[in-house]
Amino acid sequence: YEEVTGEEPAETYVRVAELTNLNDLALLKKEVYEGNILMIDISTIKNDKLMLDRALKDLKDVVVDVHGDIAGLKEDQVLVTPTGIKIDRSKIVGGRY
Amino acid sequence: YEEVTGEEPAETYVRVAELTNLNDLALLKKEVYEGNILMIDISTIKNDKLMLDRALKDLKDVVVDVHGDIAGLKEDQVLVTPTGIKIDRSKIVGGRY
Repeated sequence: YEEVTGEEPAETYVRVAELTNLNDLALLKKEVYEGNILMIDISTIKNDKLMLDRALKDLKDVVVDVHGDIAGLKEDQVLVTPTGIKIDRSKIVGGRY
Repeated sequence: YEEVTGEEPAETYVRVAELTNLNDLALLKKEVYEGNILMIDISTIKNDKLMLDRALKDLKDVVVDVHGDIAGLKEDQVLVTPTGIKIDRSKIVGGRY
């Protein structure tokens, strides 16, 4: 209880989202501006190259704006991080040390 | 440059990892203690129920220790978050508002 005074109730959340059309983007961008991390499933839109490119560009603009980060994960996911959180692109694989 | 004074160079990173055997766990636990977020691919070990259960228990112990969070994502991934970061289990799906 000692640390409650002065602490904001808001924390950083990781949220899972599905991007099915460009109208979803406003919500997703808001999450990033609010400091949340997004795991976005793009399997629905990824065959539509124009829509996918547009969505990624929009998300990337936000990322640049807030100094966050964005990276693809596997085939169907895009990870977007807000201010203060970066994506380490080197994969941790054990057993080689 | 104004904000460099007093700021630590460390940031929070999202790191991708593959869990292939229990020896990998030490590295993964260290990452969480260091405040990083992990996306762990468990496809290799998930058919070995004993190993999977042991790995998840170990990771969960760390999460409880640091007040982080842990959740499964799709079939093959486990998301682990450190202190100050929680996982919002409600999925953002657009188009219904």
